[in-house]
Amino acid sequence: HSAAVAKSLIATAEALVNPRGKGIYATDETIDGIEARLFAAEGVEDQPKVHTDAQKRERRRRWRECLYESLPTDYISGVILYHETLVDFQLAPVLSNRGIIPGVRADTDAHPLPISPLEPATQGLDDLLPRLQAAYQAGARFSKWRAPIRCDSSALPTQAGMEVQAESLARFAAISQQAGLVPIVEPDVDFADDADLRKSVEVHVKMISMIYARCVAYGVLLEGSLIKPSFPQPGLKHPSRATTSVDEIGLATATVLARSVPVAVAGVVFLSGGLSDSDAVRYLNAVNVAVNKAPAGEPLSLSRLPNLTFSFGRGLQGDAMRKWVKGDEAGAKEAFEARAKACWLAAKGEA
Amino acid sequence: HSAAVAKSLIATAEALVNPRGKGIYATDETIDGIEARLFAAEGVEDQPKVHTDAQKRERRRRWRECLYESLPTDYISGVILYHETLVDFQLAPVLSNRGIIPGVRADTDAHPLPISPLEPATQGLDDLLPRLQAAYQAGARFSKWRAPIRCDSSALPTQAGMEVQAESLARFAAISQQAGLVPIVEPDVDFADDADLRKSVEVHVKMISMIYARCVAYGVLLEGSLIKPSFPQPGLKHPSRATTSVDEIGLATATVLARSVPVAVAGVVFLSGGLSDSDAVRYLNAVNVAVNKAPAGEPLSLSRLPNLTFSFGRGLQGDAMRKWVKGDEAGAKEAFEARAKACWLAAKGEA
Amino acid sequence: HSAAVAKSLIATAEALVNPRGKGIYATDETIDGIEARLFAAEGVEDQPKVHTDAQKRERRRRWRECLYESLPTDYISGVILYHETLVDFQLAPVLSNRGIIPGVRADTDAHPLPISPLEPATQGLDDLLPRLQAAYQAGARFSKWRAPIRCDSSALPTQAGMEVQAESLARFAAISQQAGLVPIVEPDVDFADDADLRKSVEVHVKMISMIYARCVAYGVLLEGSLIKPSFPQPGLKHPSRATTSVDEIGLATATVLARSVPVAVAGVVFLSGGLSDSDAVRYLNAVNVAVNKAPAGEPLSLSRLPNLTFSFGRGLQGDAMRKWVKGDEAGAKEAFEARAKACWLAAKGEA
Amino acid sequence: HSAAVAKSLIATAEALVNPRGKGIYATDETIDGIEARLFAAEGVEDQPKVHTDAQKRERRRRWRECLYESLPTDYISGVILYHETLVDFQLAPVLSNRGIIPGVRADTDAHPLPISPLEPATQGLDDLLPRLQAAYQAGARFSKWRAPIRCDSSALPTQAGMEVQAESLARFAAISQQAGLVPIVEPDVDFADDADLRKSVEVHVKMISMIYARCVAYGVLLEGSLIKPSFPQPGLKHPSRATTSVDEIGLATATVLARSVPVAVAGVVFLSGGLSDSDAVRYLNAVNVAVNKAPAGEPLSLSRLPNLTFSFGRGLQGDAMRKWVKGDEAGAKEAFEARAKACWLAAKGEA
Repeated sequence: HSAAVAKSLIATAEALVNPRGKGIYATDETIDGIEARLFAAEGVEDQPKVHTDAQKRERRRRWRECLYESLPTDYISGVILYHETLVDFQLAPVLSNRGIIPGVRADTDAHPLPISPLEPATQGLDDLLPRLQAAYQAGARFSKWRAPIRCDSSALPTQAGMEVQAESLARFAAISQQAGLVPIVEPDVDFADDADLRKSVEVHVKMISMIYARCVAYGVLLEGSLIKPSFPQPGLKHPSRATTSVDEIGLATATVLARSVPVAVAGVVFLSGGLSDSDAVRYLNAVNVAVNKAPAGEPLSLSRLPNLTFSFGRGLQGDAMRKWVKGDEAGAKEAFEARAKACWLAAKGEA
Repeated sequence: HSAAVAKSLIATAEALVNPRGKGIYATDETIDGIEARLFAAEGVEDQPKVHTDAQKRERRRRWRECLYESLPTDYISGVILYHETLVDFQLAPVLSNRGIIPGVRADTDAHPLPISPLEPATQGLDDLLPRLQAAYQAGARFSKWRAPIRCDSSALPTQAGMEVQAESLARFAAISQQAGLVPIVEPDVDFADDADLRKSVEVHVKMISMIYARCVAYGVLLEGSLIKPSFPQPGLKHPSRATTSVDEIGLATATVLARSVPVAVAGVVFLSGGLSDSDAVRYLNAVNVAVNKAPAGEPLSLSRLPNLTFSFGRGLQGDAMRKWVKGDEAGAKEAFEARAKACWLAAKGEA
Repeated sequence: HSAAVAKSLIATAEALVNPRGKGIYATDETIDGIEARLFAAEGVEDQPKVHTDAQKRERRRRWRECLYESLPTDYISGVILYHETLVDFQLAPVLSNRGIIPGVRADTDAHPLPISPLEPATQGLDDLLPRLQAAYQAGARFSKWRAPIRCDSSALPTQAGMEVQAESLARFAAISQQAGLVPIVEPDVDFADDADLRKSVEVHVKMISMIYARCVAYGVLLEGSLIKPSFPQPGLKHPSRATTSVDEIGLATATVLARSVPVAVAGVVFLSGGLSDSDAVRYLNAVNVAVNKAPAGEPLSLSRLPNLTFSFGRGLQGDAMRKWVKGDEAGAKEAFEARAKACWLAAKGEA
Repeated sequence: HSAAVAKSLIATAEALVNPRGKGIYATDETIDGIEARLFAAEGVEDQPKVHTDAQKRERRRRWRECLYESLPTDYISGVILYHETLVDFQLAPVLSNRGIIPGVRADTDAHPLPISPLEPATQGLDDLLPRLQAAYQAGARFSKWRAPIRCDSSALPTQAGMEVQAESLARFAAISQQAGLVPIVEPDVDFADDADLRKSVEVHVKMISMIYARCVAYGVLLEGSLIKPSFPQPGLKHPSRATTSVDEIGLATATVLARSVPVAVAGVVFLSGGLSDSDAVRYLNAVNVAVNKAPAGEPLSLSRLPNLTFSFGRGLQGDAMRKWVKGDEAGAKEAFEARAKACWLAAKGEA
């Protein structure tokens, strides 16, 4: 990287997680995804309404625009946009004019790994550089690549399953920086199955270590990058799910990150996928409590972790959307701000 | 793989390189590529001719069809088709009706590796499975992925440059077999630069070993696969280019393959890219001479190599094309058959 | 390697497995090991006999010498010696004078891998070069390193467990060739547990592939090396152990080797550890039957495997020892020759 | 690790680098090494003196004991002992009674890597566990393994050269923790050759990243471990050696560590090998200055590095030894304390 590009990547990465508490609003649902959410938010009584494709498109645009215009800048540092919102709706300036950094989702659909078809291999490397260069032109300054990882109590994930995802994340990150965009690598370890906390911790450490080993091999500037990990936790089908405390998950999360993330990485923005809104905030708070005051006997290194904040979607916007679809824009903004403030507090361990 | 699919992959792979001497005709030039060759074949006096796009397309179709209809089945086991020829022109049945196996090119353009921009990273994994399934529907039974590798006397290829290409080849091979197509992995080590024979040998061994290590990791059925390697040779810019004998290159090639290719791989079909027609045939003959009668003191293992034959394009069709563009179809077929017979003899070490 | 050393390594490796049928007699039991066998061979009635240490040492020497002097040179190509026999007893010349190649055991005891204490990590790399140079001085021309690998139906072997053993084998092999000795790499996949044949096959293929990937990384001359693998087979605790046929094991073994062994490797000498004498010979015969005439539908590649022979210990010498301890030297030699001939036939698929 | 062992490892690792400024005194010269230093310290006029072996041994013992008894506990947290000092002289209690932590050198001599004989492969894994358990019994609480890495402007280090050393360090670290000793991994990148700063930085980042990738694979508890790296710097034979500022080296060193060291690692203790006493202290100060106040535009992550202190030998003891050999014990202690204080200040960036 030229010195200028490097400085710019570092500045952007740091701006996304500083000052402590600020986090990212993830609005990178696919078109079908956001439509389903808007439909659900309308509730049963409104179902007869029929929208044309053009009406739907315009509604999506207005929904995005309405929230982007009013995002609480004290709590929100950046927004991840879907391709349509960024390139077709050209909404990045609405954000950047307010000092919020626009980003873009870079991966496309995953396909099953032939040797282990239960495991996904994320796609999107073909022609990634020109796509990300176009995103930069449209105003994006960071990008994100999600790599789901299956995890159970026995054979999942396989070595091949982890390697293929670490490879995809590292190659994405290198190309993203080539396009001038801060990469956010998102290893999303599934907790729908029967792994216990120990196995989840082990998989998170291995996976994140492999990602950074490959990032170094491919020359990624870690100072100009972020990570969006899942919280290690017992699987939904494991009995200890019910008995594991939020504090245990917070401490395990901090420990995992300390063991696998190099010091240079600018920050951590957790994903909330699959968690209830309240659990996501509670886990985020717990990990920050753990680093604020390392429990007796825990290593000092926890206090050296970079800022640990959020990159949430549904959890931030759910209440707001239910109001917005009913025309209550003011209520929507208020609802969003309330949720964002809760996340901001949690990202400081003060919730 | 189901037992039936495995048997079918193995049978196809073996049919492509048996009986000894038969080889593959590579017609996977891009549309621009084949147009340039046809244009060049016409010669200066014909240049005033102007073709419309439709005329060009039809000429491409006729050129392919004409040769496919008359390919010498004693010498040619399979043909690699470009997407247009396979799917738009639907020409696979012309081949398969005559007992020749149609295949398809699976990779798309390479892009420069960010950490080492002189080195290419081959693309084409996104949505590869549906594309190859469509190729199967159109009649293809094998597929090919080319991974160019830069090689000079100093830092090229880098470890990252080799790893990224080995990864792409192995993932391609696994997906190809998922679609029912025999994969041909093509590591094409460049000889345009100043590497000497020793370096070229070292790079070939490392690269091919890495490919098969990754193929095993991703579950590729090696018995149902082929390799299309380059010949190790001194670079065009190295003084020893002029003094290295064809026999040395033949022996080096056999040695490289013995050291890096697992016994199960069904066969070797050399590429001729960048070589003159006569050099390609001479090298092919030399490597077969080396395995026919291992020179005194050379290891017996050379005699255990699988069949070593050709996957040539330009070298087979150049004479024929020059006649065909002048309307001499009979002459074109005769010219092709002569070249194919020369390759067939070389693939037995009898040229 | 200098050209002269390379030629010598290749010649030795080939002499150990040619002509087809000849194999290796493994006499590399530790001192305690051979004492226990001699003790057991004496039978109950002889137990009162008390030997001094000096008497025991002399008995060991005589036992080795007696058999070495009379080994059937039609069936036995080489003998693996324990350090005491090679260096203290200086018995290598007894073998080499008769055209039998002496070798040496190079590894020492394994220790448990800290992260997975059920899995062993083989030791012996410290000062290995001078030790092997001394063995060369004492007449050894090849060496052997055993890497046991645990295998069950769930988590064993781990990735770390396989990597550590592949690393030790490859580093041993490189150092052995530096000392002028042909290395025999011995991955010994345990079958005492509950893995089924499919898992055993998968582990063998992965493990052997990893060994050769590391051998290439460390510059091992494969033409001047051999492999001493276990037979893939269902574990003793798996129900299919009783129902799996010898033919299935023979075919699985040939398939595993074809998929993982590069063409250059000079030969395969199976270990018999843990098998009854008759099973070891039956398995050896079955794998040779499989390569002699590939079953219908099986890949031609099986016929390209190098010679597949034996490196047996107890199975060859058991009968002979029982006679020898009773003073029946002639009977001992006859008994040994009978067993060796059976192995020789099995190594040609003619038992 | 059991929870108790883990806590103890973490507490020891933290005590070695806290409070900031305290560092390690390395006294792990071999017997020949320390004799040569004592001999040199005596100076020419004293050379006629002849010592018997017993006298030499006693002199070594007294030299160690004298300094250990008076080490300034404000500045020195731990001491690395050679085997003789720890086990034969039983001097660990002299240190631990004063609150200084004794450690032990764990590696033995390196041998040349066969594929690249200019590169060393560190030895000492054979029987390492019992040796380290004995060291623990003798009072040691940490251990150290040095892995020298050659570095020049062209092919060194090779991929194999780096891999073999990363492997040895990680396996050492796992076994050390098994014995209850905090491991200090010491990748010592040579600067005697013609690499420039860019190459030295690249090699340090790759090497340290590989070490931690392997440590994670082998289950090392990073919180209970330290690293003893070299300073990245231009080689002695590169022209930029003369023009590179101490500040540049300090910033490069901090950057390298941030990019390659996981957050959990408890601390960094630099080696001074090959540097003049004054350069070692100046570099140590410069890297601490860089992290105290990251230069404008440099990433915030530098401030998240763990404590960066010293593990010096000759630089600490040189002056003291020259006085001690002349019988001036008080002067020796004073001289040592002066040097230790300078290092302590440098380890806070206050020199």
